[in-house]
Amino acid sequence: MSGRFITLEGTEGAGKSSAVPVIREMLEQAGQSVVVTREPGGTPLAEAIRGVLLADHGEPMPAMSELLLMFAARASHLRDCIEPALATGAWVICDRFTDASYAYQGTARGLGADAVATLERLVQGERRPDRVLWFDLPVEVGIGRVDGRGVSNRFDREQQAFHEQVRQAYAARAGADPDRYRRVDAAAPSDAVAAQVRQLIGAML
Amino acid sequence: MSGRFITLEGTEGAGKSSAVPVIREMLEQAGQSVVVTREPGGTPLAEAIRGVLLADHGEPMPAMSELLLMFAARASHLRDCIEPALATGAWVICDRFTDASYAYQGTARGLGADAVATLERLVQGERRPDRVLWFDLPVEVGIGRVDGRGVSNRFDREQQAFHEQVRQAYAARAGADPDRYRRVDAAAPSDAVAAQVRQLIGAML
Repeated sequence: MSGRFITLEGTEGAGKSSAVPVIREMLEQAGQSVVVTREPGGTPLAEAIRGVLLADHGEPMPAMSELLLMFAARASHLRDCIEPALATGAWVICDRFTDASYAYQGTARGLGADAVATLERLVQGERRPDRVLWFDLPVEVGIGRVDGRGVSNRFDREQQAFHEQVRQAYAARAGADPDRYRRVDAAAPSDAVAAQVRQLIGAML
Repeated sequence: MSGRFITLEGTEGAGKSSAVPVIREMLEQAGQSVVVTREPGGTPLAEAIRGVLLADHGEPMPAMSELLLMFAARASHLRDCIEPALATGAWVICDRFTDASYAYQGTARGLGADAVATLERLVQGERRPDRVLWFDLPVEVGIGRVDGRGVSNRFDREQQAFHEQVRQAYAARAGADPDRYRRVDAAAPSDAVAAQVRQLIGAML
């Protein structure tokens, strides 16, 4: 018995967090067990690495360090959280995964998809999400939402052009693999976003 | 003008730290500027990663996380410490470098040399040490020295078989590239070790 692995992707402020309880409620009502997690994070080691990733260390972090830290956290997250949960038949809902590495470090930071793919093979073997929900909205809308929160991290403070590259990278990946990816119109009102999410999850049940 | 890049390698308790002031004094007397550093570490980011590597996170750390953290730290160390120092013509003396990744994670943790070589290419490009001083001594002697210190970390507490594998990996790498590697008989009395180190550094001046 193996569960399903669903990842939520998108630029800042796209509403991934709000979708999580919608998905969880729907799956639990359908009798599924659900594990909700996030990247970077999800295990004590990976959360410690998240702390290093989000902190300010004086010098700008090398893009390659950022990418390697993401995958160091991911190796722990897979071994000690995601894989055991899938093995019990649970549905794993993960806020960001390797698509974010392709979009942020591979494209927006300029390391290239080959470097990310190399690490993906080393760390994940054949493991890929069964479904990626891509929360898409215009970058300026997302930035406005994040500004409204009053807190920001090292990624939130990147310029608009950076977030545009992230969005384009997600669009390219979603377009190249329509079986795996589903676009959510995250610029819609929140109840309309929830309805889209319910429809997409319902189609998997 | 480019400096020289010397790394010190060996199992625990092999006396690398005691060799550093010997090397520094000799180079400075020869009019060279010297940068002494260590891995994992050498920059604020890399030292933060070192903290994650040496801490106990409840679960045993996945070997792949360990390897990726080492190279995440190395990318920062190279960009913000080693390469700038070499560019000014300094001699960089580094306590452990990528040979340790081959020995500890590649061999003793069983990830294989190919995984390490992949990351070495990603992070270092063509950069390699000009000279590796390998401080070799029987594992039980090194363990006795570390026990005498009264403090130990996650690596020190590995079993003897682990440290034997590390030693054999260093021996294999040194044997395969005699132009770059020099063996120091680290089981000798400390003044004899210092004399060997002086002779090896003197040959580079």
